Amino acid sequence: MKKFIVASILFLLLLSDTSFGQTWIWYPGDFEIWLSNEVQTRRTERDVFIPPFWRVDSHYPLVKFKRTVQLSKPEDITVYAEGKYNVTLDGKYIYSDIHKITIPSGKHEITFLVNNPKTPPALYVKGKTIFTDNSWEATPQNGKSISADFWNFDSPETLPSEYRLAVKPQKAVHKEQSAGSVLVDFGKESFGFPVLQNLVGKGQIMLYYGESREEALSPEKCETFDRIEIDQHLPTDLILKHSRAFRYVNIHFGKDISFSDVSMMYEYLPVKYRGAFACSDTIINKIWEVSAYTLHLCSREFFLDGIKRDRWLWSGDAYQSYLMNYYLFFDKEAVKRTTWALRGKEPVETHINTILDYSFYWFMGIYDYYMFTGDKAFLKNIYPRMVSLMEFCLGRRNIAGMVEGLPGDWVFLDWAPMPKTGELSAEQLLFCRSLETMALCASVMQDEVKAAEYKKLSTSLKAKIIDVFWDNKQNALVHGRENGQLNNLVTKYANIFAMMFGYFDAVQTAKVKDNVLLNNKIQKITTPYMRFYELAALCDIGEQKYVLNEMKNYWGGMLSLGATSFWEEYNPALTGKEHYAMYGRPFGKSLCHAWGASPIYLLGKYFLGVKPLSPGYQKYIVEPELGGLEWIEGKVPTSDNEIAVMISRNKINIKTPSNSTGILRFKSNIKPICKEGTISSSGEKMYELELLPNRDYQVSYQTLQLKNK
Amino acid sequence: MKKFIVASILFLLLLSDTSFGQTWIWYPGDFEIWLSNEVQTRRTERDVFIPPFWRVDSHYPLVKFKRTVQLSKPEDITVYAEGKYNVTLDGKYIYSDIHKITIPSGKHEITFLVNNPKTPPALYVKGKTIFTDNSWEATPQNGKSISADFWNFDSPETLPSEYRLAVKPQKAVHKEQSAGSVLVDFGKESFGFPVLQNLVGKGQIMLYYGESREEALSPEKCETFDRIEIDQHLPTDLILKHSRAFRYVNIHFGKDISFSDVSMMYEYLPVKYRGAFACSDTIINKIWEVSAYTLHLCSREFFLDGIKRDRWLWSGDAYQSYLMNYYLFFDKEAVKRTTWALRGKEPVETHINTILDYSFYWFMGIYDYYMFTGDKAFLKNIYPRMVSLMEFCLGRRNIAGMVEGLPGDWVFLDWAPMPKTGELSAEQLLFCRSLETMALCASVMQDEVKAAEYKKLSTSLKAKIIDVFWDNKQNALVHGRENGQLNNLVTKYANIFAMMFGYFDAVQTAKVKDNVLLNNKIQKITTPYMRFYELAALCDIGEQKYVLNEMKNYWGGMLSLGATSFWEEYNPALTGKEHYAMYGRPFGKSLCHAWGASPIYLLGKYFLGVKPLSPGYQKYIVEPELGGLEWIEGKVPTSDNEIAVMISRNKINIKTPSNSTGILRFKSNIKPICKEGTISSSGEKMYELELLPNRDYQVSYQTLQLKNK
Repeated sequence: MKKFIVASILFLLLLSDTSFGQTWIWYPGDFEIWLSNEVQTRRTERDVFIPPFWRVDSHYPLVKFKRTVQLSKPEDITVYAEGKYNVTLDGKYIYSDIHKITIPSGKHEITFLVNNPKTPPALYVKGKTIFTDNSWEATPQNGKSISADFWNFDSPETLPSEYRLAVKPQKAVHKEQSAGSVLVDFGKESFGFPVLQNLVGKGQIMLYYGESREEALSPEKCETFDRIEIDQHLPTDLILKHSRAFRYVNIHFGKDISFSDVSMMYEYLPVKYRGAFACSDTIINKIWEVSAYTLHLCSREFFLDGIKRDRWLWSGDAYQSYLMNYYLFFDKEAVKRTTWALRGKEPVETHINTILDYSFYWFMGIYDYYMFTGDKAFLKNIYPRMVSLMEFCLGRRNIAGMVEGLPGDWVFLDWAPMPKTGELSAEQLLFCRSLETMALCASVMQDEVKAAEYKKLSTSLKAKIIDVFWDNKQNALVHGRENGQLNNLVTKYANIFAMMFGYFDAVQTAKVKDNVLLNNKIQKITTPYMRFYELAALCDIGEQKYVLNEMKNYWGGMLSLGATSFWEEYNPALTGKEHYAMYGRPFGKSLCHAWGASPIYLLGKYFLGVKPLSPGYQKYIVEPELGGLEWIEGKVPTSDNEIAVMISRNKINIKTPSNSTGILRFKSNIKPICKEGTISSSGEKMYELELLPNRDYQVSYQTLQLKNK
Repeated sequence: MKKFIVASILFLLLLSDTSFGQTWIWYPGDFEIWLSNEVQTRRTERDVFIPPFWRVDSHYPLVKFKRTVQLSKPEDITVYAEGKYNVTLDGKYIYSDIHKITIPSGKHEITFLVNNPKTPPALYVKGKTIFTDNSWEATPQNGKSISADFWNFDSPETLPSEYRLAVKPQKAVHKEQSAGSVLVDFGKESFGFPVLQNLVGKGQIMLYYGESREEALSPEKCETFDRIEIDQHLPTDLILKHSRAFRYVNIHFGKDISFSDVSMMYEYLPVKYRGAFACSDTIINKIWEVSAYTLHLCSREFFLDGIKRDRWLWSGDAYQSYLMNYYLFFDKEAVKRTTWALRGKEPVETHINTILDYSFYWFMGIYDYYMFTGDKAFLKNIYPRMVSLMEFCLGRRNIAGMVEGLPGDWVFLDWAPMPKTGELSAEQLLFCRSLETMALCASVMQDEVKAAEYKKLSTSLKAKIIDVFWDNKQNALVHGRENGQLNNLVTKYANIFAMMFGYFDAVQTAKVKDNVLLNNKIQKITTPYMRFYELAALCDIGEQKYVLNEMKNYWGGMLSLGATSFWEEYNPALTGKEHYAMYGRPFGKSLCHAWGASPIYLLGKYFLGVKPLSPGYQKYIVEPELGGLEWIEGKVPTSDNEIAVMISRNKINIKTPSNSTGILRFKSNIKPICKEGTISSSGEKMYELELLPNRDYQVSYQTLQLKNK
């Protein structure tokens, strides 16, 4: 029992974003940028080292940490630093021992100047009342001061520069032995360091990795492999140096080599699955579970795109991971780390990841982060980098005030054939949403001049988008305009975004739903990436039943092909090994891709129906929706609490968090009953119940029969 | 003899800036910025680590090196890199061995992408026709391409990241032994690693360093010391870890410790004293020698301010070192290294060293560099950083288009009491000269739009300066203006600069000479730093005799106090230990300060009289001036040649370089004679002789009697 309590406290400390005492601190973004370089330069494509395609930045080598203290009596502090450092007390250097310092009583300003060109300058100060946390100010030498940042490096020995993910042993589930080789199956997609147990002998060992059996069995074409040379006389376990993504590993070794078994050290980010979901449909349950596992595999030092190939930070991919994360781990730290690392340092010379749309998702990610967490401290630190990135974007508008791909820009949107030159309507929508984000953040920062500027820009752009791209004949937004010439093609992208952002009026919404979103003649979306937005937009207009069916077909389709994690792309029309090919390579496709995990988000937001109404879930709404299912139950996490929802055809049960109030909104064929609160009517067959903190509400109602689409 | 030839060739390779074969290459500025961080974070003040006061930048961690080759037959290349790397041939990754590669015949584009977060990514490729030199293109990932840079790392083993200055053993000249201590005198100011020979025993050893005997004998107040703990049973030489500046070292050690002798490893930049100077006055000769030694001590990885204390790069100090360097070492590489390191990376957030005037000296240094070397390749690489620094400066003008100290700016000018707020006339002059530099460089870069812009700005500013600050009553430029109110104080600074830059007309020049420069009522200049400009301006108007006298008094004054190198500041009114104090500390003053070495420049430029007339000494002028001396002889280096000058009261002898033409201009009481060329008259008692390459001219003439001032 005692052990359990200790473990729980440790766990709480790990998850917490508030310091309970001294912790290592650094200049915000520096640890993240440094770590992202470490992570992103681990990519290999067979023998070839493949670093990111974009500029890679460095931490500030010289950082000042400052705090003012008021002491009623002298206090001893102990100092640890990652780097060379000096200390000033009230502007005067301390010439004596700077590891243990006595601060005299009274009011004092203490400054530590830390230099480290190799890893981020970091500081750890331990005293009774004086200790490092985010109340310290951090300043790159002669730069702008902001609040120091920290994570969970809470002891002097846990150095930020030695950060490693957690590991635990994992056994293989199946082995196929041949002469000089063995094919090992770990039963599901995994990530870690292969271990050759009791390895002895001399010679070369080749390890060919596969997310599929076919890939591992293709030494010539598998995407990753390791070559090691050994010469050892006593049997010893060998743990491979690089962690790899694989389900299968095909090991080739010479006749003088033997080992007793193959296992792995599974490598993972220690986070709790705080969200939960179950329903009456076992396929949907399996989809949720595999989605959760997929997201967990891709949530590491940062939210990565996928685990086999790039293992890079891509803003468009990360944006979706953030949203899924709010319905599963609610790991704020991972969102912040990824946001800092994606942005990098000044000066802005290209779009994020060089992709036009990816700059916009970066802004939008901060909007969501603030809505879900209410974390103003982060906003304050990142705001200057938001402003400079937006300045870059604004500086690249054309004469019409719109964005288009300029030399050096990659206009991505999706892996699908479509015109990408000129002013794409979808890009203008993302730009407009980014301007709205800037207006919101500027306003939170009380930067009213800029807030008004951004507001004016977004309002005018929104009007311009509808004015230019809305086609009254096709009843949809058209794809784009180039050299003043409209391209009348209708694609889904812009229509999805406008729907999600609430830019359509009721008439437009209805038209777009039928003419675009549910119109089979419009080019289909084949990546889970864009399906995310497509299905979200459909849920936004109440098409949960349709979405559930799509989910079962699309994600269920992957499951029926044996997927243990969700893929980068899925085309039901393909067969066999064809599924694994991409980028012109037979195993180029990532079979564990974060953007494949969107059911986490869709089921949490649109079926459990939980959404923040004000920053940090101070106010929230629950609009549960069966979408044709018999029952659903689950939990949605908030920063430090959770909202539990159960809905069946005649009962709704909500357990509310202790620190915020919400609204339950639902439809019912009968007048619903709730002993724990007062239900009010809010329209035809629409009802609302105010949700007070820390309650357990039981509602009797009767679901409406949904039309079958 | 053979050894000598080998040594000479090595020496030539070392001095050369043209690659004779493969050499390590990097992205321009990256090695320099990285090295400057290493150097500048070595400062200590007693126990305290003191890094620079300004932002410190990092190299780009990810750099692409590219070259197109045309091969008539396949070629094998060997590759070395500082960092992880990949190779693409015609855009396709090479998957096989990337250390030895065969490039097929035909035309190919080869790219190496090198990643190194710790030290600058660098590349070394060795092949018959394909090898790394500055014909390669370097690009920070996704950034702008420029020509790769290099120095003298010509073998695969000489890694740029392991760069060290040269060392050689040096003996002490005197020792004073006491119980438990010894005071060691190396006879002159020096720099290196103390060596305790045959050291044996156990306990603590303290080494107190002194540029003066008094400093070494003051354990409590000396500026630098080392504390070491030893425990060794067999006598071994111990070389101290840090190199220090000192003449004296006072060593305290416990009774269980002994050593046989104390020496040092003198640490220095291996450069040749290419300039030379001798004259009929032995004090002046001694001043030249001590100046040369002072400059050499301060010319290290970079041109440092001084060797005991800061050991930092200060733009104002470096600017003067550059000019002295052109008359002594002509080490282009050291100028380039210092220029890159001072500038750092984008974005510009503060002035160089945070000092307003120091940004301007940085521009001016590039003007001079181009005039002395004609090196367009460097100009091309540094030009974008010139433009962005000038944008920063232009963005900080006030409504009158002038500069003044803004929050965060240090307005330095000189260590002397003077008003420093508002628009200082001296700062406007430096700004104006910087704009002229920009106009020149833009024009060399064929950036005609910018050239015209800068030209317009400098012309208008020059007119404004005279209009606003010229005082017709005082016949001088006044010190400044604040809030529209002129400060009618006359100080020397602006008047010196305007004189040097040729901004005065003949009338103004004459007035300023008498009313300011030679006027004892105007506040005196006490730093060698500003004496540099003061004496240069006086020489510019023919006051060599006066300047010689000043030189003998001022620099001779330091010599008579036993100086073995020249000081940061010298006030003849002080006595004894008072000379060593500065910054409120008894030994705070640097006794070996680069700006103390200006006689090198003054004697070379204004007495030997050699100056480039066009970039890179393509055209030059020799205007030798005895200044009252009986005879002078010496040499002035050019990039790869030298100009030798001898002048007495009736003879002038010039040996000309092989690759440029010049003019000898001199005054004579009689009609001069020269067998080797035709002398023409160019005014009253003024004569000119065209100097052709590679000649030895002997001129008979008669010097004019100079008035005694």
